[in-house]
Amino acid sequence: MAVADRLAELGLELPAVPQPAGAYVPAVVTGNLVFTAGQLPFVDGALPETGLVGEGDGQVAPTRAADLAALCALNALAAAADAIGGLDRVSQIVKVTGFVASAPGFTGQPGVLNGASQLLGDLFGDEGRHARSAVGVAALPLGSPVEVELVLEYR
Amino acid sequence: MAVADRLAELGLELPAVPQPAGAYVPAVVTGNLVFTAGQLPFVDGALPETGLVGEGDGQVAPTRAADLAALCALNALAAAADAIGGLDRVSQIVKVTGFVASAPGFTGQPGVLNGASQLLGDLFGDEGRHARSAVGVAALPLGSPVEVELVLEYR
Amino acid sequence: MAVADRLAELGLELPAVPQPAGAYVPAVVTGNLVFTAGQLPFVDGALPETGLVGEGDGQVAPTRAADLAALCALNALAAAADAIGGLDRVSQIVKVTGFVASAPGFTGQPGVLNGASQLLGDLFGDEGRHARSAVGVAALPLGSPVEVELVLEYR
Repeated sequence: MAVADRLAELGLELPAVPQPAGAYVPAVVTGNLVFTAGQLPFVDGALPETGLVGEGDGQVAPTRAADLAALCALNALAAAADAIGGLDRVSQIVKVTGFVASAPGFTGQPGVLNGASQLLGDLFGDEGRHARSAVGVAALPLGSPVEVELVLEYR
Repeated sequence: MAVADRLAELGLELPAVPQPAGAYVPAVVTGNLVFTAGQLPFVDGALPETGLVGEGDGQVAPTRAADLAALCALNALAAAADAIGGLDRVSQIVKVTGFVASAPGFTGQPGVLNGASQLLGDLFGDEGRHARSAVGVAALPLGSPVEVELVLEYR
Repeated sequence: MAVADRLAELGLELPAVPQPAGAYVPAVVTGNLVFTAGQLPFVDGALPETGLVGEGDGQVAPTRAADLAALCALNALAAAADAIGGLDRVSQIVKVTGFVASAPGFTGQPGVLNGASQLLGDLFGDEGRHARSAVGVAALPLGSPVEVELVLEYR
């Protein structure tokens, strides 16, 4: 099944490639690898939420942050697809690196990144099985709670 | 000398591949590169220590954190070995990225990561000479003081 | 025009390769990629400034931090040039990852990293158009306000 069909089954569609937040491009191809920029969970050019992820009042709940991580991954896929001519050319998701803007003491970064990982697994099956690093950081661009970058292989 | 023999000389053995902390795999091969997941210093499935690295009371001492960084590297090697069929196939450690959960004001991340770098040098000699980034972060998964990921080349 | 000539036009020259802050090397070549170590804004072996980046008193101003990010990129280019035999062999800047030691609440990491990105664009034109991740972290080695690593492709 084409990746676009699987996206539709999940009620999703590939967004327009997000505008970079600085003097760079959304994705670069080298050999048969694509490196995407770190992607924020933009929806139609705006962040749906800002702040630190944690369990406390006024913080972004981890389950909400997992949804945002999936949005980051979707934006990263849009960037990659634009660079290589479509998601059906993806042969392997190689590496996911996810940064979570974390309130003091929050250590549930893996659960947050599972939002991205599960989307990639749903879309690509075995070819979506990736290595991953999840890190809790002090702050992310524009106050985003999550940022995700991908390395992927294409055919 | 085989890498396993050098490990034995150091009183070490390759651990079982640590179970990923989320919906991902321990390492992915693309071309002649291996990207490992960010590895925590698990020993038999448990973190020997949690907390922030620093010089203060109740913090993880930098020398202890260096030992933990070596454990992370060993786990990353186990993940890579499983993906490529053994450590003797490693032709170059390319890149080490190390994240240190850092107490406010702690800037000794390079000393912590030297625990990982020295192990790689001892095991692989010239082929273990890698580029490295060391970063101090707010928090790491499950409260781990250190996380290390590798990119390596194999033959 | 040779990259060295563009550097001269900008009033810059390629520095000596900075001494690594630990048991690693400044850059490693694999295939036609170069991975540099995370580079600090060393000038003649010393950090021109330390501290957290932010808008407050006693913090490193974001515009100053952008200059430091450019220095990091220049040092990373020196490391890469040494590994591949000169900057004219660079065929593409693939990925820039930038870490900004960030005061609480500072979310202007993209502006800081633009210091590095604009230098790369000025020097390499289309071949300098890179993917980028910008992250705000708790602390960096030796108190550096910024750290930048590069992945680049060469011919």
